[in-house]
Amino acid sequence: MFKLEKIIEGSLTSPLGFLASGVTCGLKTNNALDMGLIYSTEKNSIAAACFTSNVVTAAPVNVCRKKLIDNKKCRAIIVNSGNANACTGKTGELNAKSMISLTAEKLQIDTNEVLVASTGRIGVNLPMDKINSGIENSVSKLSETGGHNTARSIMTTDTTPKEIAVKFKINERIVTIAGIAKGAGMIAPNLTAPHATMLSFITTDANINQDYLQNSLNIAVGESFNRITVDGDMSTNDSVFIIANSKANNELINNDSTHSEIFQKALNKVLIFLAKEIAIDGEGSTKLVKVIAKNAKSEKEAKICSAAISNSLLCKTAWFGCDPNWGRILAAAGYSGATFDPNLIDLYYNEVQIVSNGEDFGKSEKELVKIMKEKQFSITIDLKAGKDSYHMWTSDISYEYVKINADYHT
Amino acid sequence: MFKLEKIIEGSLTSPLGFLASGVTCGLKTNNALDMGLIYSTEKNSIAAACFTSNVVTAAPVNVCRKKLIDNKKCRAIIVNSGNANACTGKTGELNAKSMISLTAEKLQIDTNEVLVASTGRIGVNLPMDKINSGIENSVSKLSETGGHNTARSIMTTDTTPKEIAVKFKINERIVTIAGIAKGAGMIAPNLTAPHATMLSFITTDANINQDYLQNSLNIAVGESFNRITVDGDMSTNDSVFIIANSKANNELINNDSTHSEIFQKALNKVLIFLAKEIAIDGEGSTKLVKVIAKNAKSEKEAKICSAAISNSLLCKTAWFGCDPNWGRILAAAGYSGATFDPNLIDLYYNEVQIVSNGEDFGKSEKELVKIMKEKQFSITIDLKAGKDSYHMWTSDISYEYVKINADYHT
Repeated sequence: MFKLEKIIEGSLTSPLGFLASGVTCGLKTNNALDMGLIYSTEKNSIAAACFTSNVVTAAPVNVCRKKLIDNKKCRAIIVNSGNANACTGKTGELNAKSMISLTAEKLQIDTNEVLVASTGRIGVNLPMDKINSGIENSVSKLSETGGHNTARSIMTTDTTPKEIAVKFKINERIVTIAGIAKGAGMIAPNLTAPHATMLSFITTDANINQDYLQNSLNIAVGESFNRITVDGDMSTNDSVFIIANSKANNELINNDSTHSEIFQKALNKVLIFLAKEIAIDGEGSTKLVKVIAKNAKSEKEAKICSAAISNSLLCKTAWFGCDPNWGRILAAAGYSGATFDPNLIDLYYNEVQIVSNGEDFGKSEKELVKIMKEKQFSITIDLKAGKDSYHMWTSDISYEYVKINADYHT
Repeated sequence: MFKLEKIIEGSLTSPLGFLASGVTCGLKTNNALDMGLIYSTEKNSIAAACFTSNVVTAAPVNVCRKKLIDNKKCRAIIVNSGNANACTGKTGELNAKSMISLTAEKLQIDTNEVLVASTGRIGVNLPMDKINSGIENSVSKLSETGGHNTARSIMTTDTTPKEIAVKFKINERIVTIAGIAKGAGMIAPNLTAPHATMLSFITTDANINQDYLQNSLNIAVGESFNRITVDGDMSTNDSVFIIANSKANNELINNDSTHSEIFQKALNKVLIFLAKEIAIDGEGSTKLVKVIAKNAKSEKEAKICSAAISNSLLCKTAWFGCDPNWGRILAAAGYSGATFDPNLIDLYYNEVQIVSNGEDFGKSEKELVKIMKEKQFSITIDLKAGKDSYHMWTSDISYEYVKINADYHT
């Protein structure tokens, strides 16, 4: 009897009733996969989504946001990488809608049931001839094992595809949730509203109420994608989509369901896994740092303190250099906007105390450098100003980060 | 007849009645100058200052801030580099006070007339034996041409000393203002209050009212140091000091003075020059970018928009790579918190329009790359949401920045 289990080599097509594909349509120069399609075989499939809170939003985000207000039905998502279709005006909006219509036509489903996403360079119109033949090809390549290709097709500066599937039981029915994600740069949380900071697509065969699905997605995003930062830059295209198709035939999950907890737990697990994968694969990143701010005056203050440290360029370069320069961490906490008495602060690397009441605790540098050489470690700052905590995951900043982003275009 | 003139090779000791020195006391490993002293020969000299708004403040900042509340008299400032005396608790505060007493004793002036500043590594106690002999040496080396050595003595990762002096006339009296500054990393503006983001020391022989001097310094800091950013990290030690000694014997400058405008203009010129020098000499920086946000809904919105672009790691690395990737600029404006319609935005590199109404204006990439290869260029974003403008100066982020900050400690 399993409670919540990770499926070995699981992907988008692990839940019942999902097909997927990933093809090359020529948007990337290196002949890599650059278009993906996710398709539910079930009528009455529903969707929920979270989008970027950036004021500048890409055409596909605008189109999907509008569609999902009136209509929660969804059986397919078409996505391309290599071009963000952002800052492309009316032409961009027409192109996003045209991607939807052609996908619907080829799948022989209603245009209302198709969503669209894009990622890549901003400000360039989509080459619609390539897009159109890519869509035809994507439909023809749909398969029950296609999830892995979809995961590859959405990569930009990612070095590895990010995918996971988990299963659990509701009474005797097995329910599966799977997800893929991409994102390595332009990754930063917005701390005020649930939204995504990259592209992620989640599929589930759960039988679930749509309101509950949206609510559950908001919670999971708040526990995962909103807690990662690579470079502090929030994208114009960030989106998380989930499609649920009821094929598991479980007792309906809704607000009153006794099974909502296990569903939420499973969804959190999928999203947290993908979020951490993004931070680990952050552009040029060599390590994953969990930054915990505890005993803050409020959760908001814990958040801004954790975020200031997580985004500090001086902290991130020190981590890259395995330099236990804790002054930079205290300086970042100091300008974060969180209220605290600097003479009370404690600081820990993993479980090792470094600072006591605002002063050096006398630990040997050798011991600290050893911790910082690990691929993953945590930093805990105890503000002693209240009872609220918050944590984030961040990456370091290396030469490679600069190389990737100075040379991205050329 | 000159109106406002830069003095060739001017420094701190250009105004009448100022001596200065710079010595080696052994805080830096490479035998470089690491202690400076500024001294006014005139009794009744007064001071004004602006300090960091970071919650975590260094001992010398705490000590000076307290001193200046009750007592505006000041004839000397002792400063060391190589150690910030920050996060050093009660010992740090005693050490800062002890630097003041010894300096006063050796100069045979009142302890109330001495201020202190430190810059360098956080969290390490000052080696007081070295400091003490450094102070004795600084006093003995005071000279009328010592300003250049003081400018060198405050450098940390700076590659060049930063100094300037200007002169102007009030009736027939020549008044001089001079300044030095240091700072290359941990440089970022606070946008809410006048404060400094580095160390700067200003001397003037002007006869000026103290309230007016403080007010004038606040304005000049708002036009200069608060508008620069290198890495978005605000320091624990940032301070700007000005000493005025009346030796020019001009008609008193105060709120009602007809000469206040020329004084403010001269002070702005000195601080803006030093601020831009800091941004140009930013750690690993290869170019200076002026980021102008215009036609914002309010000055505050113009500020946050300009600051978001100026601090965006993706923008800064693109500038380093001479990549005219304007999508990153629009994305940063979009998450800045400024309100605007993305379909109305215009964008310019220098005078060349790149984006019109949120879309590419069709300029050749070659032309744009040519602009970006210049050592200095400007970016203007027209939000078309109101009438307020704001500008900042920022630097790019290079491999060298990462190298300097990953290796700072070791």
